[in-house]
Amino acid sequence: MKRFERVAVIGVGLIGGSFSLALKEKNLCRHIVGVGRSPANMKLALERGAIDSIETDAAAAARNADLVLVATPVAQFSGVMHSMEKTLKPGAIATDAGSTKRDVVAAARAGLGSKISQFVPAHPIAGAEKSGAAAASKDLFRGKRVVLTPLPENSPESIQLIQRTWAATGAKVSTMLPEEHDEVFAAVSHLPHLLAYALASEIGGRGNAKELFAYAAGGFRDFTRIASSHPEMWRDICIANRDCLLTEILSFEEKLKSIASMLEAGDVTALEKLFADARAAREKWLNGEHQ
Amino acid sequence: MKRFERVAVIGVGLIGGSFSLALKEKNLCRHIVGVGRSPANMKLALERGAIDSIETDAAAAARNADLVLVATPVAQFSGVMHSMEKTLKPGAIATDAGSTKRDVVAAARAGLGSKISQFVPAHPIAGAEKSGAAAASKDLFRGKRVVLTPLPENSPESIQLIQRTWAATGAKVSTMLPEEHDEVFAAVSHLPHLLAYALASEIGGRGNAKELFAYAAGGFRDFTRIASSHPEMWRDICIANRDCLLTEILSFEEKLKSIASMLEAGDVTALEKLFADARAAREKWLNGEHQ
Repeated sequence: MKRFERVAVIGVGLIGGSFSLALKEKNLCRHIVGVGRSPANMKLALERGAIDSIETDAAAAARNADLVLVATPVAQFSGVMHSMEKTLKPGAIATDAGSTKRDVVAAARAGLGSKISQFVPAHPIAGAEKSGAAAASKDLFRGKRVVLTPLPENSPESIQLIQRTWAATGAKVSTMLPEEHDEVFAAVSHLPHLLAYALASEIGGRGNAKELFAYAAGGFRDFTRIASSHPEMWRDICIANRDCLLTEILSFEEKLKSIASMLEAGDVTALEKLFADARAAREKWLNGEHQ
Repeated sequence: MKRFERVAVIGVGLIGGSFSLALKEKNLCRHIVGVGRSPANMKLALERGAIDSIETDAAAAARNADLVLVATPVAQFSGVMHSMEKTLKPGAIATDAGSTKRDVVAAARAGLGSKISQFVPAHPIAGAEKSGAAAASKDLFRGKRVVLTPLPENSPESIQLIQRTWAATGAKVSTMLPEEHDEVFAAVSHLPHLLAYALASEIGGRGNAKELFAYAAGGFRDFTRIASSHPEMWRDICIANRDCLLTEILSFEEKLKSIASMLEAGDVTALEKLFADARAAREKWLNGEHQ
């Protein structure tokens, strides 16, 4: 497939750094220029070979690039897109790694103006509770999903190029509408993160937190693993997708209330059935029967 | 320490089987007799060397035993204790592996009558989503906690013997009141299990479950790991500890409501602080600063 002459990665963290390393591994680019807020992180990205040079801002990085990846926290997309609009050259193509898509599309439309056709939104499902270029890996996307939410303005060629580029990182690429994307991920990703944060916050905020944590075991550790995720990133995701997320919170509260009613009524049959059905659904998923 | 001549294990599942294997490893018993509902599981326990013989019921197994472990689901404790009362010999000692303690103590008092002094309640914090003798391991308790909730009727010698026996399995043994135990574990164990079951049930019960699961990733997998736990066991735990658990559900609902309010108000500062504090509390725990 096409080798990019110059790739710009805006935000060289776990995702941006891993994308860069994967492209380099496949020899799909000649030069990668990175932009980032933390000088120490950018230095590390250089040392690790994820990028070849550092630019000061998105506008400068996008100039002369034929591929741009926007991988900053989603709340910064608006400014980044405005910057890129000034310099993104004709024929260049851009994608992103935002965990929400309706807000990303809106920011891109507002920022990129008539260049919106050059932007094909993407969401790689490859988060980790670790962050920064230090955690980046060429294999991060291997076997993971990447969801594209192409725009009506995108040409089939642009969509195909972005599809092939993400596939080159080892990912399984599929396509959704931005609205569908945000609904699906509110349920299977954003809500679980919120619940994990909520429990860790609840326990950690109590007067006897020390005693409680002393008896927390492996179940608690795994349940709350995603509460070690990046607070700023998850703040942005939750705010960006808050309507879908609030709907999920309401559904979950209803589910909790129905379980509380079973407990109050001592309805052992209903409770065991709910647990057994939940386990069966999860096992079916783990066995790949939902794929 | 003292070597037991005859140990009876009532319920030779993950916990009972692991206890047996650990005692054998330390050469702390001459003969272990097992009781269980599933002939196939009991046969496997024999083949794996976890037990030396099989008895048909708790009364028969307790006869002539000098140590009894009750490791059935908690809902069966009442019947088991009544059976044991008939045959538990003077000087013999009993313990259990129930995940709740107030109900176990009540069942033991009602069932064992004047022999209650011979029963020292215990809760090994070593669950796993796997169950049965097939999953048993001599190392299951190594480095894990076992909480004793001794009774006023227990002699110091009985408490010490049970303490040393659990310590011999490799566990860190500590002591609580039954009431304190049930409050602590409602928060750090029973609620997380309920939340994981609730989410897996919620997603699995939807019309688009197949699509939702297709995009569920590592975060969802770890968050719901404990929803693969034994439904009957967790039904019993949740029912036995339902007053504490309902209190925890209420607190968690309040926490969710406060987070929903932050989302509705777009209060990014409060949301990020909650996420950051939750992560910090969890990291402090993982770093052993709460031990």
